[in-house]
Amino acid sequence: MADRRARVGIVDVAARAGVSVGTASKALNGRGQLREETRARVRSAAYELGFIPSAVAASLLTGRTYTVGLIMTDHHGRFSLPILHGAEDALGWDEALAFVCDTRDDPIREQHYVRSLMRRRVDGIIVAGRRTEPRPPLSGAPRVPVVYAFARSADPADCSVVVDEEAGAVLAVEHLVRTGRRHIAHVTGPHGHASARARVDGTARALRMAGLELLGDPWYGGWSEVWGRFAAAALVRAHPEVDAVFCGSDAIGRGVADGLRECGRRVPDDVALVGVDNWQPTAEGCRPPLTSVDLNLQQVGRTAGTLLLEAIQHGGVATGIHTVPCRLVVRASSAPLSG
Amino acid sequence: MADRRARVGIVDVAARAGVSVGTASKALNGRGQLREETRARVRSAAYELGFIPSAVAASLLTGRTYTVGLIMTDHHGRFSLPILHGAEDALGWDEALAFVCDTRDDPIREQHYVRSLMRRRVDGIIVAGRRTEPRPPLSGAPRVPVVYAFARSADPADCSVVVDEEAGAVLAVEHLVRTGRRHIAHVTGPHGHASARARVDGTARALRMAGLELLGDPWYGGWSEVWGRFAAAALVRAHPEVDAVFCGSDAIGRGVADGLRECGRRVPDDVALVGVDNWQPTAEGCRPPLTSVDLNLQQVGRTAGTLLLEAIQHGGVATGIHTVPCRLVVRASSAPLSG
Repeated sequence: MADRRARVGIVDVAARAGVSVGTASKALNGRGQLREETRARVRSAAYELGFIPSAVAASLLTGRTYTVGLIMTDHHGRFSLPILHGAEDALGWDEALAFVCDTRDDPIREQHYVRSLMRRRVDGIIVAGRRTEPRPPLSGAPRVPVVYAFARSADPADCSVVVDEEAGAVLAVEHLVRTGRRHIAHVTGPHGHASARARVDGTARALRMAGLELLGDPWYGGWSEVWGRFAAAALVRAHPEVDAVFCGSDAIGRGVADGLRECGRRVPDDVALVGVDNWQPTAEGCRPPLTSVDLNLQQVGRTAGTLLLEAIQHGGVATGIHTVPCRLVVRASSAPLSG
Repeated sequence: MADRRARVGIVDVAARAGVSVGTASKALNGRGQLREETRARVRSAAYELGFIPSAVAASLLTGRTYTVGLIMTDHHGRFSLPILHGAEDALGWDEALAFVCDTRDDPIREQHYVRSLMRRRVDGIIVAGRRTEPRPPLSGAPRVPVVYAFARSADPADCSVVVDEEAGAVLAVEHLVRTGRRHIAHVTGPHGHASARARVDGTARALRMAGLELLGDPWYGGWSEVWGRFAAAALVRAHPEVDAVFCGSDAIGRGVADGLRECGRRVPDDVALVGVDNWQPTAEGCRPPLTSVDLNLQQVGRTAGTLLLEAIQHGGVATGIHTVPCRLVVRASSAPLSG
């Protein structure tokens, strides 16, 4: 493998053309006053040597580096990678590249990354969260546009792109009602999580619109399968008439499915289930495969990328909260009642 | 939010110091012949204006950009993100930044990304696969060091860091033997996958060392839970004496656990299980929690980062295949036989 000393630089081009490095630079960038003959000689030398024009050098002239930073904190990548994909699509993947920095939930690391990104003159920064709680604005007040994705900034003057989780819950419950269910319970994550509360609110809204009431109180717990199994057993004892459960996550949904089966309830014949996340391995591994609310994270990334690009090109940034709708992916766990 | 026109540039510094841009640049970079008084005046102006030294500009002088490219292809991030973390650790996360490019299994996209990375003068490239089949070398023959991680390059003159999957299977089977199991079966992924074959080879080796034989043939299938459930039922019919199953993945392991339970076999009392991947949500959601072979992907990234850094600093790259060992994470599914 060739090492980097073999790389052709502008110094080589200048030497071959018999001009100074400054003149070679002007000739290649099309700037400055030069005789046409000189310009042609330099470009010819560059061609002969296989010189690759440097984006690094070009950026000094245009003021743009066509790079952005993506700051994330998400060991599993479950939330961040779809956001990265969407941002790549919006920014033009053949043009802009993203520095990806994982802060690992460490504020010191986040500050270091911001400084490091600024030193590299990124055109803008996307901050992707994995929880939907509002987060403090990025420290170090970077003087480039910043867009928050999934987790909104606590500062309303910032630009945030979030998922309309409440509307996602409405989709789920409306679907359960349409399949003929009337005794609908809700098992979800911790009360302290904004996502859990938004889903509870959406559930209540959709039931109200359908002239129904929630079966008992919402079951707050953890986002885990274990909690889903436990809740299913308790739910069947407390409300034997249950015919549907909207679950706050796919992991909970899997646990509820297993728990119900072990109580002798059939899914979906006796009880229909809908989860949230549409995380394929979990939703498809469920027995039966789990209908799920997809949070449209790729669309969140695409919107964040589009807003960032507009801010980079035209200055300023569209302040406020931009919401992206969810969509429902129907699988076997919520088949309509045949009766 | 301030827009980028507010950024202080070297032009502003030069104007304040009353010198040319070229002189300001020399003064800030410590290059060239300048009077000490001039150098001091420029640095003072930079300090007053809050000028941030530009890594972009500095890289033109040092020849290094302190950036690397990470090319991956992995929608779920399950394999790539731990590799990114390890690479960040090795490269010095406060110094080097990684451009992350997801090729989405598209060779055209890969070529574009390589060109794009070269235009940005990255110091080196890490290519992270999600399958362990050897892959063709990166097209476009980038003139910087390249290290392949997880999926090795088909060219032995390249530098590849891979997991010793066969040794991982040996760890799993040795552990099962130590827990007192003697009738050990193996349920795994497709025969066409190098990972499945390596695990079969390791299983055979460990059994041979223990003076045992595999119970029946390896059960090749898919990497899914559904396959695990199906295989468990078939296995119990074919070999009722089975007392342990080494599963080629955690997803298969979960399926086998559920399938065994539904055949009336207790895990681990009647049958012990070990999976591969140590993918936390899957291994811990299993009933009971699944003992698993961890592929040490973060260590793969760390080794790849270290090799890349050496190549960047000293030229050349350590050719050949570098292997990283697996480690076993023991959970309830493989408790020792009490009898």
